[in-house]
Amino acid sequence: MAETIVMKFGGTSVAAPEDIKRAARRIVDARELGKQVVAVLSARGKTTDDLVAQAFEISERPLAREMDMLLSTGERISCALCAMAIHDMGHNAISLTGSQAGIVTDSSHTRARIIEVRGDRIREGLGADRIVLVAGFQGVSGDSRDVTTLGRGGSDTTAIAIAAALGADLCEIYTDVAGVFSADPRIVPGARKLPHLSFDEMLEMSSSGAGVLQLRAVEYARNHAIRIHCRSSFDDHPGTLVLAEDETMERPMVTAVTHAYEARVTLTGLRDEPGVAGRVFGALADANVNVDMIIQNEPVSVDQKADLSFTVASEDLGAATDVLAPLEVGEAIETDPRVGKVSIVGAGMRSHPGVAARVFSTLGENQINIEMISTSPIKISCVIAAGQVPDAVRVIHEAFDLGAEAVREEDPSGEHRPRVTS
Amino acid sequence: MAETIVMKFGGTSVAAPEDIKRAARRIVDARELGKQVVAVLSARGKTTDDLVAQAFEISERPLAREMDMLLSTGERISCALCAMAIHDMGHNAISLTGSQAGIVTDSSHTRARIIEVRGDRIREGLGADRIVLVAGFQGVSGDSRDVTTLGRGGSDTTAIAIAAALGADLCEIYTDVAGVFSADPRIVPGARKLPHLSFDEMLEMSSSGAGVLQLRAVEYARNHAIRIHCRSSFDDHPGTLVLAEDETMERPMVTAVTHAYEARVTLTGLRDEPGVAGRVFGALADANVNVDMIIQNEPVSVDQKADLSFTVASEDLGAATDVLAPLEVGEAIETDPRVGKVSIVGAGMRSHPGVAARVFSTLGENQINIEMISTSPIKISCVIAAGQVPDAVRVIHEAFDLGAEAVREEDPSGEHRPRVTS
Repeated sequence: MAETIVMKFGGTSVAAPEDIKRAARRIVDARELGKQVVAVLSARGKTTDDLVAQAFEISERPLAREMDMLLSTGERISCALCAMAIHDMGHNAISLTGSQAGIVTDSSHTRARIIEVRGDRIREGLGADRIVLVAGFQGVSGDSRDVTTLGRGGSDTTAIAIAAALGADLCEIYTDVAGVFSADPRIVPGARKLPHLSFDEMLEMSSSGAGVLQLRAVEYARNHAIRIHCRSSFDDHPGTLVLAEDETMERPMVTAVTHAYEARVTLTGLRDEPGVAGRVFGALADANVNVDMIIQNEPVSVDQKADLSFTVASEDLGAATDVLAPLEVGEAIETDPRVGKVSIVGAGMRSHPGVAARVFSTLGENQINIEMISTSPIKISCVIAAGQVPDAVRVIHEAFDLGAEAVREEDPSGEHRPRVTS
Repeated sequence: MAETIVMKFGGTSVAAPEDIKRAARRIVDARELGKQVVAVLSARGKTTDDLVAQAFEISERPLAREMDMLLSTGERISCALCAMAIHDMGHNAISLTGSQAGIVTDSSHTRARIIEVRGDRIREGLGADRIVLVAGFQGVSGDSRDVTTLGRGGSDTTAIAIAAALGADLCEIYTDVAGVFSADPRIVPGARKLPHLSFDEMLEMSSSGAGVLQLRAVEYARNHAIRIHCRSSFDDHPGTLVLAEDETMERPMVTAVTHAYEARVTLTGLRDEPGVAGRVFGALADANVNVDMIIQNEPVSVDQKADLSFTVASEDLGAATDVLAPLEVGEAIETDPRVGKVSIVGAGMRSHPGVAARVFSTLGENQINIEMISTSPIKISCVIAAGQVPDAVRVIHEAFDLGAEAVREEDPSGEHRPRVTS
């Protein structure tokens, strides 16, 4: 049987008519190489934003079920148009909605999770020698048979889930960036395009500010061992391959610096009694507020009270304070709507205990004060003043020598297996 | 069980946010009167035109299947937004796609016919005390499970078909016009809004230029005895009721004058042999060209040849000549891309043989030359020069005294049963 490939095109890759035709050309090229092709498309350019705006013209709190019905139209438009373009290139294509493709989800409207990919009609289409286009970002609730959506960036997850269901071992993600970089090139012009990354590194990067891939999509890919190739739809250069760690020959100590902006909440004068933290974070979870970093300073003596700080996404700050005020667990709730977070990620960190120290001293030497720290085996995150983020990214990027001038080079053969460099 | 009503809102009735809210208000008002309400919505304002334009930016001949996938999104957007608005008014609403509503069609993409309305989810929604919104104009092919559309104006048919399936006896069609008029008010400012019409009259009017209701919708309504109330969504005045003839107490001789513009094809020097007409119209039917009026002048002697003229929709003229040229059935194909057609419609015509003579003499007295004539028991159509259409409509409207100043008056009680006047 022919090799099956899943190609995903983001919103900027299908925005203008010529973008749709370019995506169609790529799909047709893969088909003409003898591959069975499934393409997952996002909504065109600003379509989703425009649909959201239409909803808010009607209602201040649009119903989630209806929001999903509304937003799911955007990807269907992209798919229908791309099928037309492919047809004009002499190939057969069929577009499917998420529901038709058998993307079965739970019933959590606007942020549904995929439960199962039935994929019967995808296989049928491939079997009939057709290119199959699937509307990304959407599915159908197994319980209510209602249209659901997977949340922002959900098309990545659609693509990976389909690749897993079809037994494809590669999913190409086409966007308007050339791949995953060692830092945001807008801040660090010398940032290096990373030829490959492990799933774990990509997970840490997605969760700490690198917007290239949706976190859930990377998790799904790791769990099903689907290799991801993040690349530009506007040129033919290889991008960044995300794969299992045992496939990567390289173990760089630090792979990349990422950054993000969040909001911080501090509960001061917290009563030191059992269960306080549980009540705080339980209430936040009930309100669907995702907490990122947490620190609590322990009271020094029995009489003293503790302070508890945590960060949340900026758009969740209002919901967080709304939920915490009635709990009355401390003396005051202080908020900072915008703090910066700089993270360094690298699988090699596990065996290099000195990395954290170097990060802290680098920031210190540059008069950047660290307000909170959180670590994982392959990531160190520091909360700093928002205004110091660009400087922090630059100095860390330089301190760990992550730039394009480094010895590491991309494999010009396109095999994405760079020489071992560290 | 509560009375069930189907309300259909056209594109101009859901165009702006305030239009959607106005439609929602009407729906909620009906619900608060204790009715079970199903509303069928068209795509907003220029949405369909915009989607069609997107398709033609991609392809000169967009695939019909994908065109349906594309266009069906417009009505879904309207329904989702309207459900949000209804929710804000304190009522439960659920939007359904044509497929979810169980509108099963044949597989003729872009002009599918409804085969069956399953309607399980509509009944489920009504049973759960919800207002049900159904995306008009669309269905799902029973064979291929693909999305289909019913052709321009198809939302009327959706509404009538749902009314029939639910056993509703009234379908309200909301548009931007106040009802059906005795002539186009843009041509005849004194045209009268007709309080009611028979199905047969409405059928003749729909097929001869009155654009208020889709022909197929009227046929469907007649076959299932669904009364139609055509009215404005912008005020509360009663509009025009379309019902079975035995329900109308009035039998006006002439009810209305309609007009349309078509293209004419004349095959000159036709060979006088059996089967020629069959070949001509068979070929046109195969090319999906609907022929309206046909005349053939019989050859006077055996040696003479006949001329055959017929009219088609202007947009079909190219297809018609493409199909006829290779047949070589006559000496030449002459075409006129724009001729006018003026029709008078009235159920009372059946028992008033003098109507045709009065039409012809009225046109003659006004120097309007009649080029083709076709009649039915309740309609007389005349093809005339396109430029003379406004004059022809005016003089006929006056000759038959169809204007608002006539003795007939609308029933101010809103019962839509005007006094007998002829």
